[in-house]
Amino acid sequence: MAFIVKKNINGKYYFYLNENNRVGTKVKTKTLAYLGKDREEAEKKMREFLEKRTIKENLNENTETKNESQNLKTKAEEINKIALSKGFFFPTAGIYGSSSGFYTYGHLGKLLKNNWENLWRKNILSLESNFHEIQSNNILPEKVFIASGHVDKFNDPMIECRNCHSRFRADNLLEENGIENPETLGLDEMTKTIKEKKIKCPQCGKINFSDVKQFNMMFSLNVGFNQKEYLSPETAQGVYIHFLEEFRATREKLPLGLASIDKAYRNEISPRQMFFRLREFTQAELQIFFNPEKINEHEKWEEVEKYKLIVKNSKEEKVREVKCEELNSKNKIPKFYLFYAAKVQEFYLDVLKVPKEKFLLRELSENEKAFYNKIHFDVEVYFDTLKGFKEVGGIHYRGNHDLSGHQKTSGKNMEVFYDGKKILPHVLELSFGVDRNIWALMDLFYSVGKEGSMLELPATLSPIKASVIPIVKKKEFEDIARDVFSDLSKDLVISYDESGSIGRRYARNDEIGTPYCITIDGDSLKNKDVTIRDRDTTKQIRVKISKLSGTLKKLIEGEIEFSKAGKLLK
Amino acid sequence: MAFIVKKNINGKYYFYLNENNRVGTKVKTKTLAYLGKDREEAEKKMREFLEKRTIKENLNENTETKNESQNLKTKAEEINKIALSKGFFFPTAGIYGSSSGFYTYGHLGKLLKNNWENLWRKNILSLESNFHEIQSNNILPEKVFIASGHVDKFNDPMIECRNCHSRFRADNLLEENGIENPETLGLDEMTKTIKEKKIKCPQCGKINFSDVKQFNMMFSLNVGFNQKEYLSPETAQGVYIHFLEEFRATREKLPLGLASIDKAYRNEISPRQMFFRLREFTQAELQIFFNPEKINEHEKWEEVEKYKLIVKNSKEEKVREVKCEELNSKNKIPKFYLFYAAKVQEFYLDVLKVPKEKFLLRELSENEKAFYNKIHFDVEVYFDTLKGFKEVGGIHYRGNHDLSGHQKTSGKNMEVFYDGKKILPHVLELSFGVDRNIWALMDLFYSVGKEGSMLELPATLSPIKASVIPIVKKKEFEDIARDVFSDLSKDLVISYDESGSIGRRYARNDEIGTPYCITIDGDSLKNKDVTIRDRDTTKQIRVKISKLSGTLKKLIEGEIEFSKAGKLLK
Repeated sequence: MAFIVKKNINGKYYFYLNENNRVGTKVKTKTLAYLGKDREEAEKKMREFLEKRTIKENLNENTETKNESQNLKTKAEEINKIALSKGFFFPTAGIYGSSSGFYTYGHLGKLLKNNWENLWRKNILSLESNFHEIQSNNILPEKVFIASGHVDKFNDPMIECRNCHSRFRADNLLEENGIENPETLGLDEMTKTIKEKKIKCPQCGKINFSDVKQFNMMFSLNVGFNQKEYLSPETAQGVYIHFLEEFRATREKLPLGLASIDKAYRNEISPRQMFFRLREFTQAELQIFFNPEKINEHEKWEEVEKYKLIVKNSKEEKVREVKCEELNSKNKIPKFYLFYAAKVQEFYLDVLKVPKEKFLLRELSENEKAFYNKIHFDVEVYFDTLKGFKEVGGIHYRGNHDLSGHQKTSGKNMEVFYDGKKILPHVLELSFGVDRNIWALMDLFYSVGKEGSMLELPATLSPIKASVIPIVKKKEFEDIARDVFSDLSKDLVISYDESGSIGRRYARNDEIGTPYCITIDGDSLKNKDVTIRDRDTTKQIRVKISKLSGTLKKLIEGEIEFSKAGKLLK
Repeated sequence: MAFIVKKNINGKYYFYLNENNRVGTKVKTKTLAYLGKDREEAEKKMREFLEKRTIKENLNENTETKNESQNLKTKAEEINKIALSKGFFFPTAGIYGSSSGFYTYGHLGKLLKNNWENLWRKNILSLESNFHEIQSNNILPEKVFIASGHVDKFNDPMIECRNCHSRFRADNLLEENGIENPETLGLDEMTKTIKEKKIKCPQCGKINFSDVKQFNMMFSLNVGFNQKEYLSPETAQGVYIHFLEEFRATREKLPLGLASIDKAYRNEISPRQMFFRLREFTQAELQIFFNPEKINEHEKWEEVEKYKLIVKNSKEEKVREVKCEELNSKNKIPKFYLFYAAKVQEFYLDVLKVPKEKFLLRELSENEKAFYNKIHFDVEVYFDTLKGFKEVGGIHYRGNHDLSGHQKTSGKNMEVFYDGKKILPHVLELSFGVDRNIWALMDLFYSVGKEGSMLELPATLSPIKASVIPIVKKKEFEDIARDVFSDLSKDLVISYDESGSIGRRYARNDEIGTPYCITIDGDSLKNKDVTIRDRDTTKQIRVKISKLSGTLKKLIEGEIEFSKAGKLLK
């Protein structure tokens, strides 16, 4: 993991970008770049460095040393190893060899995922009182996807080897053979290029490919006996088709936000990059229906007008921090859009604690974005394991594409009467890939230090909030520990750890991201207090048992500073 | 809804079973039965009455008057009407005509469902510290279901009309034509009986049926290009196939409980009875893996040994209340099973507040239960709308059926080393249909009184915990109301209701089950207090704003009595 270090050289401070990597059983630190003498400058330079790395990776101009890319691969392997052995996640149906693109969350991973989803509910879904969560079906009628355009357009270019009958994504095959931006080519051009370049089948090595064809990525199934339906490739459609019912049930007000946290399914031809090409995955999506005439206003605009968004567009070389008011006046991005972009960024920086230099909002070019998106920024986070900034969410101004599509196909009028007239609302979609976000958290907060591996998750995200550790093996001490454990367990996920040395027990908790360890020791009986150890600093404080539950909750929520939450032990 | 009333006749008390039904726009009360002079006796008699009604319904000997069954149908219609207009649930994709067996939860229904699931986590999943939630995939490889037996055995008997090509479940068709227990017949016997009885096609009226065939109820789909996989028809299999990973990750202890709250999918031939035959539905299932040698022990046995289970088996006429210790010593039901049966019953009676006389655990006969279940009680609740006790969950001792099946099919050893030897754990499954439970709650707690309809949900389940109602239309009062609203909204789902008469606002909240209304009135500014109104009694108390949040939380959790939580207004 790349991180900034401050060095004192002859009384002056200098900033460097370092990275720790495991080589065999040892951890080696390597300096990647000099970042200057100023913290703010250093953060900026770090982001530029990481940006450049991404661009290189994306252009397939891999100038990194083999060793470095090996180390990064090792980090992914280590995360996978911890994830399996501790119960975060693992390939589904491993006993049957598993099929690619499917992952199962173990008990810690499911807690982490639930925490992420609940923080999303608390911070995104709760932005307005007229934002609500609904739950539609995963299986939806064919007409829904005729209306949305998925039946016609949700395709990947596919090619088959006539010799061994292996099938591949044609654009991936071209990319792997050095063709830049193959996604801009038509089917015929792809077929032609593959023939001209005499590209071999990666499976059997023969040169004998079929023409490139469109392959629809939706899973179809028969409902009843012969009614064709689909597994939804995005949660959004399940929301759009019920806009009218919910508009009425919520007493006919705009803006109306309807969210869904649910599975989506895509039959990827070649699933890869862990959680980035899953065939079954979780989305958290919020569709905000609003009056298009009011797109350049938001009643809480003043909350964000001076807030700086971290943005980059395809024409710009560098990431910029720009105030919302400037993006509104110069770049003509409407206030309604910017308000939610700012709230999304705040969620990433302040709640998920993504370091500023590892976050950006990337504006997609006309080529890149879906035709119905009028404004489209991807939410991107820097991944060590994928060597680059990658999409974990998106902010999509979809216009009335979806409602008008459903109106046309169903014949039902989707307009509503609001503000004295009939309008077809427009949609701003805040869309997040939950699994990618989970992988991002593992990538951001996992590190290997001298004491072993650490998962420095924000406490609100940690699967287990505290571990109760009795040190003295006597009934009266274990009774206290049990009482503390049951009391805390009423509201929090707590573990009870009674085996191994105290150091081993701390290490075990550090490894899975437990922010606090509570030890019951020789003084606990007499003084009715316990020690709380902080994962990140290893500092310890002494706290009365009667105040423990309240103190712990405040620590988790970040409402008090650790060293002031009790008597600090030296 | 049937309910007990106590009547004072010449100074003596008598109990009766009454039922309110809507006739046109009026509500009529009818006395169904006399229940005796004693409360306990009355509850018992009520249960017997409802039981008898169920049996009649099940045997299709409908001796109820047409009028009564019309009224019950009306209750279902009314619930559906409220559910749609208020946003609890409605048929999916209504704008496309919807396909049967699919329902969408609106914003209130989703809150109710989330609350149910969270109470289940808090009360069932938290029974032991080694019980955990995981999340597997909905799409699983074919081999999983070869191992589980679903590919071979998860079939319904299906018949097709040769004239109009409509298809039906053969057992339903037989039942509708007066044949008792058709599910005990073989395919040939069904075919023969349908021919002999000259049963007509319900669609076209012709007598020209095909032979009865098996129809597999799983949805199959192609993953990649031609890899056959299935949508899981129960969450359980996604858990069994990952038992080994989780046993290791949780540090190799038994009993180990692994739960999953997730969708399951069944291609029902004829979906019906609302949430009872859905094609896509949510299950909350807990698989407890344990050492079979220890089946007749549980470390907390003394908590339940004197607890009376409400049970009935197929040989008995009447429901009995029997102590766990008696069921253990006389009926030879093992302690490990009884402990969890008692905890499930407590969850229904104490947490979900199902009236005792509307709850029972029904032991299935050898004919009824799945061949791999060694002990099987259904959890049943009485439904007005379905006129009978119906299954909402089940407690299944599945032996080692599943682990040994996966062991055989995958070739992987599923045994673990525990207590000094190798064992293949047995499984006790606690299984719940979440949607059926939601329907049960609507059925149990919905009623029509003189003031309009009411949803008397327990406060812990109510979608919205309180509504803030400003009465005085002046800025300073509305400011207080807004402050109260934002303060309470930090931890609870609260609504803000500023339109309509005060009576209308109360009624609107009663209708969706909001337990408390908080009014800000003319005295609130001076006294810094508000009025809380209790939905069920319409009593009101006065509470200081500074204590409001704490008081409200205690009221919701049932930790204080309403009339003692503030100054009671007369």
